[in-house]
Amino acid sequence: MDPDNLSVVLHAKGDLRLEQRPIPEPGPDEVLLQMHSVGICGSDVHYWVHGRIGDFVLKEPMVLGHEASGRVVRVGTGVTHLKPGDRVAIEPGVPREMDEFFKSGHYNLSPSIFFCATPPDNGNLCRYYIHKASFCYRLPDNVTYEEGALIEPLSVGIHACRRAGITLGSLVLICGAGPIGLVSLLVAKAMGASQVVISDLSADRLAKAKELGADILLPVKREDLPEEMAKRVESMLGGMPHVSIECTGVESSIQTAIYATRSGGVVVLVGLGASMTTVPLLNAAVREVDIRGVFRYCNTWPTAIAMLASKRVNVKPLVTHRFPLEQAVQAFETTRQGLGVKVMLKCDKNDQNP
Amino acid sequence: MDPDNLSVVLHAKGDLRLEQRPIPEPGPDEVLLQMHSVGICGSDVHYWVHGRIGDFVLKEPMVLGHEASGRVVRVGTGVTHLKPGDRVAIEPGVPREMDEFFKSGHYNLSPSIFFCATPPDNGNLCRYYIHKASFCYRLPDNVTYEEGALIEPLSVGIHACRRAGITLGSLVLICGAGPIGLVSLLVAKAMGASQVVISDLSADRLAKAKELGADILLPVKREDLPEEMAKRVESMLGGMPHVSIECTGVESSIQTAIYATRSGGVVVLVGLGASMTTVPLLNAAVREVDIRGVFRYCNTWPTAIAMLASKRVNVKPLVTHRFPLEQAVQAFETTRQGLGVKVMLKCDKNDQNP
Amino acid sequence: MDPDNLSVVLHAKGDLRLEQRPIPEPGPDEVLLQMHSVGICGSDVHYWVHGRIGDFVLKEPMVLGHEASGRVVRVGTGVTHLKPGDRVAIEPGVPREMDEFFKSGHYNLSPSIFFCATPPDNGNLCRYYIHKASFCYRLPDNVTYEEGALIEPLSVGIHACRRAGITLGSLVLICGAGPIGLVSLLVAKAMGASQVVISDLSADRLAKAKELGADILLPVKREDLPEEMAKRVESMLGGMPHVSIECTGVESSIQTAIYATRSGGVVVLVGLGASMTTVPLLNAAVREVDIRGVFRYCNTWPTAIAMLASKRVNVKPLVTHRFPLEQAVQAFETTRQGLGVKVMLKCDKNDQNP
Amino acid sequence: MDPDNLSVVLHAKGDLRLEQRPIPEPGPDEVLLQMHSVGICGSDVHYWVHGRIGDFVLKEPMVLGHEASGRVVRVGTGVTHLKPGDRVAIEPGVPREMDEFFKSGHYNLSPSIFFCATPPDNGNLCRYYIHKASFCYRLPDNVTYEEGALIEPLSVGIHACRRAGITLGSLVLICGAGPIGLVSLLVAKAMGASQVVISDLSADRLAKAKELGADILLPVKREDLPEEMAKRVESMLGGMPHVSIECTGVESSIQTAIYATRSGGVVVLVGLGASMTTVPLLNAAVREVDIRGVFRYCNTWPTAIAMLASKRVNVKPLVTHRFPLEQAVQAFETTRQGLGVKVMLKCDKNDQNP
Ligand SMILES: NC(=O)c1ccc[n+]([C@@H]2O[C@H](COP(=O)([O-])OP(=O)(O)OC[C@H]3O[C@@H](n4cnc5c(N)ncnc54)[C@H](O)[C@@H]3O)[C@@H](O)[C@H]2O)c1
Ligand SMILES: NC(=O)c1ccc[n+]([C@@H]2O[C@H](COP(=O)([O-])OP(=O)(O)OC[C@H]3O[C@@H](n4cnc5c(N)ncnc54)[C@H](O)[C@@H]3O)[C@@H](O)[C@H]2O)c1
Ligand SMILES: NC(=O)c1ccc[n+]([C@@H]2O[C@H](COP(=O)([O-])OP(=O)(O)OC[C@H]3O[C@@H](n4cnc5c(N)ncnc54)[C@H](O)[C@@H]3O)[C@@H](O)[C@H]2O)c1
Ligand SMILES: NC(=O)c1ccc[n+]([C@@H]2O[C@H](COP(=O)([O-])OP(=O)(O)OC[C@H]3O[C@@H](n4cnc5c(N)ncnc54)[C@H](O)[C@@H]3O)[C@@H](O)[C@H]2O)c1
Ligand SMILES: [Zn+2]
Ligand SMILES: [Zn+2]
Ligand SMILES: [Zn+2]
Ligand SMILES: [Zn+2]
Repeated sequence: MDPDNLSVVLHAKGDLRLEQRPIPEPGPDEVLLQMHSVGICGSDVHYWVHGRIGDFVLKEPMVLGHEASGRVVRVGTGVTHLKPGDRVAIEPGVPREMDEFFKSGHYNLSPSIFFCATPPDNGNLCRYYIHKASFCYRLPDNVTYEEGALIEPLSVGIHACRRAGITLGSLVLICGAGPIGLVSLLVAKAMGASQVVISDLSADRLAKAKELGADILLPVKREDLPEEMAKRVESMLGGMPHVSIECTGVESSIQTAIYATRSGGVVVLVGLGASMTTVPLLNAAVREVDIRGVFRYCNTWPTAIAMLASKRVNVKPLVTHRFPLEQAVQAFETTRQGLGVKVMLKCDKNDQNP
Repeated sequence: MDPDNLSVVLHAKGDLRLEQRPIPEPGPDEVLLQMHSVGICGSDVHYWVHGRIGDFVLKEPMVLGHEASGRVVRVGTGVTHLKPGDRVAIEPGVPREMDEFFKSGHYNLSPSIFFCATPPDNGNLCRYYIHKASFCYRLPDNVTYEEGALIEPLSVGIHACRRAGITLGSLVLICGAGPIGLVSLLVAKAMGASQVVISDLSADRLAKAKELGADILLPVKREDLPEEMAKRVESMLGGMPHVSIECTGVESSIQTAIYATRSGGVVVLVGLGASMTTVPLLNAAVREVDIRGVFRYCNTWPTAIAMLASKRVNVKPLVTHRFPLEQAVQAFETTRQGLGVKVMLKCDKNDQNP
Repeated sequence: MDPDNLSVVLHAKGDLRLEQRPIPEPGPDEVLLQMHSVGICGSDVHYWVHGRIGDFVLKEPMVLGHEASGRVVRVGTGVTHLKPGDRVAIEPGVPREMDEFFKSGHYNLSPSIFFCATPPDNGNLCRYYIHKASFCYRLPDNVTYEEGALIEPLSVGIHACRRAGITLGSLVLICGAGPIGLVSLLVAKAMGASQVVISDLSADRLAKAKELGADILLPVKREDLPEEMAKRVESMLGGMPHVSIECTGVESSIQTAIYATRSGGVVVLVGLGASMTTVPLLNAAVREVDIRGVFRYCNTWPTAIAMLASKRVNVKPLVTHRFPLEQAVQAFETTRQGLGVKVMLKCDKNDQNP
Repeated sequence: MDPDNLSVVLHAKGDLRLEQRPIPEPGPDEVLLQMHSVGICGSDVHYWVHGRIGDFVLKEPMVLGHEASGRVVRVGTGVTHLKPGDRVAIEPGVPREMDEFFKSGHYNLSPSIFFCATPPDNGNLCRYYIHKASFCYRLPDNVTYEEGALIEPLSVGIHACRRAGITLGSLVLICGAGPIGLVSLLVAKAMGASQVVISDLSADRLAKAKELGADILLPVKREDLPEEMAKRVESMLGGMPHVSIECTGVESSIQTAIYATRSGGVVVLVGLGASMTTVPLLNAAVREVDIRGVFRYCNTWPTAIAMLASKRVNVKPLVTHRFPLEQAVQAFETTRQGLGVKVMLKCDKNDQNP
């Protein structure tokens, strides 16, 4: 095994370095992976630019990256379901304790969960990485490594659409056509939504949404009034949406989502904004429009793999840029500038294919 | 039949009159009822004092009252499940259209619903009243008329606790110990909550809550900080509540409810406050604390009757005052002053028993 | 209006007649429809051949037909959402009472429900027919009358897949590739199933299933052993199905469905067989495989129309034969012989298009 | 620490021995417990008498016992939530793998689960026992060891009532008044059931059910016809039960449960009977009566402790016999003869209190 373990390490706000790290040894229930493809997430860039997200503050150097796939190189003594050579997608959140949340199937809510590239836990933007074997999922031959890496953002969309209760014939509003809005769009259609309207400030992002299957585009201007936007959504869809999935975190967009949603429907909050938000809660309450948050995901990898393998969801068009791991800083800069949708870092020197 | 149909009619904001009205004839699917006991609700008083609630504005004289029970006097030609002499509790909301909400079991959300004492629909604070037979429910002999009338507020508690998903072993926070907070308390315990903490500004109301079975009392002062209140709730309960039922509509109390609720739990909004509210939505979202409104109720009368008949819920202590119908203005004044919990008007001259 | 109201009337077991009936007048909440397309259902043929289905016994002449669409000719005085000229699909089951089932959104379970062509209620295989307006649904221009008529069998599939809890990534077994198995297949895929295996005795029916999108075909022979079939399903799918939808009613096929289904999964019983069935209930119980029946459907028409209008479900290939109303007996004979999938009767002399 | 580790070991069918075993050392995530109270379960006796239950066959000597509580003596290096001296109840099923069942909150369905006294896994009818710390739950001071041991059977009742969807106002039929029927009764009432009717062949068992809060007793004779029993249940309750919980495993009783249950209701199968069962599946299907099995339980210990600590469920009357560990054979003989309800073995020489 090549001793090169080039890693993308954030030392402090603004201080991103490419450096060599030792190749770790897997414990009994772990696997050592040779990383192949790792997508850059808005949160990676946010740590780079701000050094923190909410209460999570970078205190010591941390490897970035959590949208990842790779190849099994070595397996721990207790690992039975994986073997060297297996191609796997990595679920970055691994519960550390068997607490009430884990036992009841909501391990994403476990407060002590390990999560790649959330301080102080290291991510996997490197050449070699160890992970809990039970949170690595074998990819079928017809699913590429990049699709494997994209399961992470796709999982946010799956969890959001599940929490939304999207089903056959749902009319859906998605606010924001960034990567998260786009994966929510893909999943909503695959779950049976009959019409999806998607909003954004940017015409380019809306065009991408159209390409990915959005039925109706709603261009938004900052000064638009939420109640009026809600009326436009209703008339565009020929009825109020059963579900709104908010993927911007912007206050006015949350307000639009609430006003727009049909009585008895659901607003899902995926976008993360300010800590206090002013919203028409009374309007939601008396129309029994439920407001449900989303924190990452749980139990999504097998579902996502099934959908990718059966070609029922196509995430490939999300990838707009690729860089070799050595050019990580340039890749981060691309994401920071909001160019394209998803930037992929290629970690395997000998295989830079999708 | 005595032609006296003394009725409590609100003519305009502040203008409440006792006047005679003709005794109506039931249509084919209706019943004529001799009213027995009618509770006064905060909303009745609100119409009296302000002439409106939100978008519902009093435009012409309206009979007040919607927490009611009575005796069947005459049945329409198509009515088969009721007969003269039957004692019934009245569900005041009757859907007018077989729309999507009614067909799917959420008739309370039907926008064209008839609702007693919500303009322009008349209520039943009178001697004789007609109602759709299918929304009158026969009372067993061991359930009194007043219990029958109290099914209306109790229904708000049932619907709130159902929406909250209260179940065996739930830890529950109830904000506000007014009539609605108290019925929520009764229902929460009956559904299996193991510990209920209830908050209020008023020591008297908390004392009543204690009498009705509250496990822990939380006296609140206006200046208390929501995040600190949330910590007190956790330490009082020995854990964060799975469910918070907000029955005040006050912004700081809604904030407390959100901060207090356990990750993956539910905040139910029963209290109706300002149209815009500033809340820690981000905190709720990343902990997947769902926020669910309550608009009245549906499918609660049979449940309530079953609970009252089997003596598993005791609503009798809620009644603190009784007045004959003739003294309605005095009764309203009592409620307006916040004296006691529930004021009952006795509409049957020959039977003023509970 | 043409006074011709040719109707397909079953007088007794085996005695099917084409006869003229008077054109009825719509009541206040009804509409008069000029029928356009009516599919023949297995149950129509069953009444013809046996004069009964279970406890429903033909006692007096009855018009057959319940998979239907038509054009509004006249509306009752209270009807506001429809007008003459509207093209509509007809939901054949109309609850007569506001009982607990209707109020809670399960009106299909209301014991006193009206249902077209279930004795003693007349169906709509005729030229002119009146129906409750609130159970007629306007078809968008891009949905044909035949698609409108096919909403009835499609609804069985929708209700079955809802009851099954099919969702993103579900692996599904469908037993039987008759019309009901096929619509279940269409709906399962539209709801996100990643792989559907479908079984039948007939190679022709399996071929049709393939054409409609089945991923895997499972030819069955009468002597096949259920436990072995279950193992074949698992190996074909690469895992046990999360859901099995039984659409044959045959005992051995129900057994296969139970053995095959993954622990924690669901078997939905759509097929109607013998009154007593011998099944491996212990196997289901200790693996918590739920067994859920399906009785027709509720709240499916708007969903179906949304799916058809958005072209997310294609039912057109189900229609294999068409006959003018005058040739109804020949059409029934075709269905009786099990030829093709769905036979359509064309009731409008001036428009025999799909 | 006293080196005495007297253990109740089943060597083969009929060969139950009291013998000394070494005191084990806890691993990093385990605790060593001094056992206090262990209830005898029907399954313990079944292994003793038959040497097997279904596919679980005793192949080498196995310690019996799985309804247990004890005191922490030593904790593994990684254990933080427990310390020596803590009184704990033991959940006997501990998942070994983080498979799909565990991750989604149904760890009871994990095929590789460890389970006390299910071959080949040893139980805890001994003086000293080690267990996974995360499946030991601290008992509050006001919950006795015996209550702690009774959480195991109580958990079956909790899981059954949850699966049944029992809620406020449910009418409930429980078939069988053995220990499992009785705990289901306790839980059903605590979850809000308004009326519970319970059946049994034995008058003694029915008398015990009455003592524990059953509303209506239904004495059964072997020759009673299921359809007639169902009618009796309906007339006793004044309506068909929403839920039936079958706790006998006897075919005729399962049939009664299906016929008796209200349309849209649920039959829960707790009782384990023959591998093939003949049942009126058609009746269940067309009335959408769901049939759901129960396999042990998951996520019940914290709930049970909350209910016991708040005195909302009283399991104490279930204990009818107590024996010191040394008299285990006599204790088993008592259970085998069906005397009383629950027999407790007292494992701590110095504390034989409840
Ligand atoms: N809850 C979670 O677990 C989770 C996980 C991942 C991302 N997120 C959050 O989801 C959000 C979206 O993530 P992303 O990666 O797609 O971000 P992004 O910034 O790339 O996309 C957001 C999009 O919203 C658009 N937008 C801004 N204001 C708008 C408005 N008023 N109306 C309509 N559109 C508007 C922007 O133009 C942009 O295209 C972020 O807030 C992120 O923090 C949450
Ligand atoms: N959603 C619905 O369908 C529905 C139905 C009925 C009533 N309501 C609403 O429910 C609310 C309660 O109704 P009610 O009749 O009990 O009203 P109420 O005014 O009698 O009771 C409210 C209680 O809240 C207490 N309170 C005020 N501020 C508080 C704070 N910061 N913390 C704790 N307690 C505080 C008050 O002292 C009072 O006892 C009202 O807002 C009413 O409009 C809603
Ligand atoms: N529950 C409801 O509300 C409802 C509604 C409509 C139809 N149904 C029932 O659904 C069932 C299917 O209806 P349909 O119109 O498709 O009937 P159908 O007779 O046309 O189709 C049944 C199919 O099952 C196949 N089959 C028979 N035995 C089989 C076996 N052992 N394994 C696999 N396939 C087998 C047959 O070859 C046939 O193709 C019928 O029993 C019908 O009564 C129920
Ligand atoms: N599913 C699970 O996870 C689980 C867990 C524990 C026990 N069980 C099963 O639950 C059942 C009950 O357990 P238990 O310990 O209470 O057993 P038990 O044998 O003590 O009680 C069964 C009771 O059913 C009564 N009975 C028998 N036939 C009857 C009939 N036709 N009608 C009414 N009552 C009848 C008996 O008189 C007896 O009182 C057993 O089958 C057991 O195997 C299942
Ligand atoms: Zn990310
Ligand atoms: Zn009220
Ligand atoms: Zn049909
Ligand atoms: Zn047991």
